[in-house]
Amino acid sequence: MTRSFSLAVIPGDGIGPEVISEATRVLDEVARAHDVTFRQTPYVLGAEHYLETGEVLPDETLAEIRGHDAILLGAIGGKPGDPRLPAGLLERSLLLRLRFELDHYVNLRPTKTYSQVDSPLRNPGDVDFVVVREGTEGPYVGNGGRFRADTPHEVATEVSLNTAFGVERVVRDAFARAQARRKKLTLVHKTNVLVHSGNLWSRIVAAVAPEFPDVTVDYLHVDAATIFMVTDPARFDVIVTDNLFGDILTDLAGAISGGIGLAASGNINPDRTAPSMFEPVHGSAPDIAGQGIADPTAAIGSVALLLDHLGVPEAAAQIDRAIAADISARTGKRTTKEVGEAIAARVAGDVAGE
Amino acid sequence: MTRSFSLAVIPGDGIGPEVISEATRVLDEVARAHDVTFRQTPYVLGAEHYLETGEVLPDETLAEIRGHDAILLGAIGGKPGDPRLPAGLLERSLLLRLRFELDHYVNLRPTKTYSQVDSPLRNPGDVDFVVVREGTEGPYVGNGGRFRADTPHEVATEVSLNTAFGVERVVRDAFARAQARRKKLTLVHKTNVLVHSGNLWSRIVAAVAPEFPDVTVDYLHVDAATIFMVTDPARFDVIVTDNLFGDILTDLAGAISGGIGLAASGNINPDRTAPSMFEPVHGSAPDIAGQGIADPTAAIGSVALLLDHLGVPEAAAQIDRAIAADISARTGKRTTKEVGEAIAARVAGDVAGE
Ligand SMILES: CC(C)[C@H](C(=O)O)[C@@H](O)C(=O)O
Ligand SMILES: CC(C)[C@H](C(=O)O)[C@@H](O)C(=O)O
Repeated sequence: MTRSFSLAVIPGDGIGPEVISEATRVLDEVARAHDVTFRQTPYVLGAEHYLETGEVLPDETLAEIRGHDAILLGAIGGKPGDPRLPAGLLERSLLLRLRFELDHYVNLRPTKTYSQVDSPLRNPGDVDFVVVREGTEGPYVGNGGRFRADTPHEVATEVSLNTAFGVERVVRDAFARAQARRKKLTLVHKTNVLVHSGNLWSRIVAAVAPEFPDVTVDYLHVDAATIFMVTDPARFDVIVTDNLFGDILTDLAGAISGGIGLAASGNINPDRTAPSMFEPVHGSAPDIAGQGIADPTAAIGSVALLLDHLGVPEAAAQIDRAIAADISARTGKRTTKEVGEAIAARVAGDVAGE
Repeated sequence: MTRSFSLAVIPGDGIGPEVISEATRVLDEVARAHDVTFRQTPYVLGAEHYLETGEVLPDETLAEIRGHDAILLGAIGGKPGDPRLPAGLLERSLLLRLRFELDHYVNLRPTKTYSQVDSPLRNPGDVDFVVVREGTEGPYVGNGGRFRADTPHEVATEVSLNTAFGVERVVRDAFARAQARRKKLTLVHKTNVLVHSGNLWSRIVAAVAPEFPDVTVDYLHVDAATIFMVTDPARFDVIVTDNLFGDILTDLAGAISGGIGLAASGNINPDRTAPSMFEPVHGSAPDIAGQGIADPTAAIGSVALLLDHLGVPEAAAQIDRAIAADISARTGKRTTKEVGEAIAARVAGDVAGE
């Protein structure tokens, strides 16, 4: 039986289209082997599209995207400081709008070290953790404003909104992931300063914990968590944290594991009321765009997360093995396409060897 | 002419009293040499004091402290998870209350690497930067609350308050420091998501910049800043940022420079309408308290910042030289007292050699 999925593909800006080409190359390879088909529909969205058309994410486009089984996204964002791009416009009205409207409350970001990849850390150790970042609330809700704007008496506010509903569902997801892994969950927050939301997070973690009696729970303030991220990252198994702290910690995690070029992510709607979205953690990197030198590994790894989510875990595992093998064999610099082809070839070889 | 200053000393909890003993030992040594006297008044405050008396910071004590020329603080905080200490009580009602009421709007946190100190980074490079962290507003204001608390319908909010007045004064201070250093200022924020406060920070940095034409300004999102902190920390000269991002970045900065045991800080009121407060960045470390093994270097470095602030820069420089020399000569493990005595002896030797 051939399973068939429809996939919305948003290559986006900068290196986005370059890495997405390689990600879909690997997807096509692995799909063939597993008797799965992906009908891919490209959506042209992002900074460039906005500058050409004035459109960010029309409601009809969002409605169409919603009809797919999953979304694969490259990267969104123009040149930093481009005066034609209002600060935060694309982030808020495109990327975050997708995450919020499609209820991607689990922003899943795994980190692994490979002995062949140079970490900036002297002794990273054997790192293998996932950050479960809340994706739909916290300081990302866009609530707040400017009062007496542009005057010497301006007051600007940002309101972090945290709900028991929103925190509980992501905490439960994180516990389940810890249960299936090394059974250790670390809540990261700043409960000694952000006492209101901190209380909510702590209370819910404590309330859910008895449902997962084998999972050990600990807590770190976000500032202390950054220290451990560079002194002992191997201590982590599953980290659960809010939207902003998760944003910060996962870039740091990408860096210590040897590069944001390897960091994959899933914006997951575990209830499957809307399609989940998979994207590399890195951005559009306008400085290296068009040169064909971006590392597509993070985008390819995001395809593995996508396959896992769609219930094709054997295919996901195959990609993960191919990535690990490719990383082990790394020698000099390669182009984006060379990396994509190498990983695709390993997938094909793995299939043939079965 | 003997200059005479009155100093409020708050040793606090855990290793606080241990490191403060050594800090005042060095202060006494250097003061003698510079014909300065410090009348020191100890204030017993902190977790232990709260557990014994129920008092955190009585108004009369705050009024007394306000009467001093400066404050030297060790560390505040009980055992993590102690059920008798409500989350955030000591932080909010003691440490942050002091910072807010005494208008410590410049939270100054220098970072340096010393070749003799092992950094967790493979190649930290020649790191020498200061973070100017806003100290009196942002997400630290304690604004927010819990609605339908302890029910499944709870909503918890945290409101970050940012004023043109508050941002401008700290930005101007940071520009002046950059001007006196390597002339590079990096604003760290998250303007693509926290668009309201981000707009205020960006606008004010742009507005103040023309007053400091030799200072080069750049901008990093906080997530990207953590990447550079581990891949290229030597790029930074002065970082200016909000209260929460500054909290996170300075712990990370302490970690990459080889340990939070070296990180000094000043909570400075540049307008001198109230005494400034100097404290190590590290906490009370209950796990190693009472053993006499904590590194007092951060506390001693905080005394140097204090002397600088009080207008005795020669004495501050002497301490900084003594710390650098002590670090260069480090071999095995030493006790808190041995480190304090060694630095005090170097200060005395430096004086004798003049
Ligand atoms: C581009 C930005 C809005 C986004 C975020 O902050 O979530 C990015 O940094 C990420 O981590 O995916
Ligand atoms: C103890 C805590 C309130 C404090 C802060 O968050 O400012 C500490 O982490 C610091 O950096 O001085």
